[in-house]
Amino acid sequence: MKCGVLGTGVVGKALASKLASLGHQVMMGSRSAGNGFGTFAEAAAYGELLVTCTTGTTSLEVLRSVAGRDLKGKVLIDVSNPLDFSHQPATLSVCNTDSLGEMIQREFPELRVVKALNTCNYRVMVEPGRVPGEHDVFIAGNDAEAKEQTTNLLLAFGWQSVIDIGDISGARATESMMLIWLRLFGKFGSADLNYRIVR
Amino acid sequence: MKCGVLGTGVVGKALASKLASLGHQVMMGSRSAGNGFGTFAEAAAYGELLVTCTTGTTSLEVLRSVAGRDLKGKVLIDVSNPLDFSHQPATLSVCNTDSLGEMIQREFPELRVVKALNTCNYRVMVEPGRVPGEHDVFIAGNDAEAKEQTTNLLLAFGWQSVIDIGDISGARATESMMLIWLRLFGKFGSADLNYRIVR
Repeated sequence: MKCGVLGTGVVGKALASKLASLGHQVMMGSRSAGNGFGTFAEAAAYGELLVTCTTGTTSLEVLRSVAGRDLKGKVLIDVSNPLDFSHQPATLSVCNTDSLGEMIQREFPELRVVKALNTCNYRVMVEPGRVPGEHDVFIAGNDAEAKEQTTNLLLAFGWQSVIDIGDISGARATESMMLIWLRLFGKFGSADLNYRIVR
Repeated sequence: MKCGVLGTGVVGKALASKLASLGHQVMMGSRSAGNGFGTFAEAAAYGELLVTCTTGTTSLEVLRSVAGRDLKGKVLIDVSNPLDFSHQPATLSVCNTDSLGEMIQREFPELRVVKALNTCNYRVMVEPGRVPGEHDVFIAGNDAEAKEQTTNLLLAFGWQSVIDIGDISGARATESMMLIWLRLFGKFGSADLNYRIVR
């Protein structure tokens, strides 16, 4: 499948590499084209499936630079977190009664947004086996077919447990998990960690 | 040890029973005395160790009804969450840049507040074996001795893994985990669930 990866940081690179390794065609989008990247608008036009890997505070702005017809009906997997590092400890710029995932879905109703993979480090996203044993990834979104497609992609990434927590408002829950993630990262000194829901 | 359990709902009752079963002397405190309960002020005066099990939105008000001299130097384990059920899905009345744990510590600097046990159901709090396998409880607080005392109590409760996530501002992280907890409870239909940090 043709994939448009919006963002060329470590997260975007890791996801683009993984998607390519699985046989997908990938265009990465950046603020300005060059170095093998297209613009955000070009990558979004190219992809049948879109992934937002931009910093959370710019995700909406990036999508505003894309022509509306190039978003229509597409699945967008939002892995970004609305982290604000101007505060220490880092805070979320939106939290509790709203979420970045919902903001994207609300402003771009033509997209089928699935919040996913935002609860772990980018290396773990594409190589879940870095963390030993059983652990989980969460998805939230309004469109059942989009969640099924995302789940299949996550299984192809190597994830063994995908927990569907409901509609896109579930992004409030998974984005808020950044607060504990950052504490645990600080404590253990390694990003190779993840959550297992035990029951 | 003499324990003052503030709150006579299901959480307070479960914790008071558990403490008593471990050989501690317990007085439960309620808004008005009777039925074997003291007032909040009487229970706080009685306890060398205090536990707040009131609804999160009233925890501060309850502590304001206690004479300052009866709080001085005491360890207070705060298990309450600032949940606001007037919204659906439920939200937190304080979140992200502050927490109930911090609010209590700030208003009552004479207390040594430890945020603990607020990430699981009351039955799991006192009987962690209800959830199979390995899973974690988190503590946060400014006073090392208070955290050690709390850890020992949690081990006596049956917890096998207590993760110290740092100072009381860590309560922002664990209180925020209510958002995912509520989604998971809704999905799985059982409160017998908990988190395992895998690494």
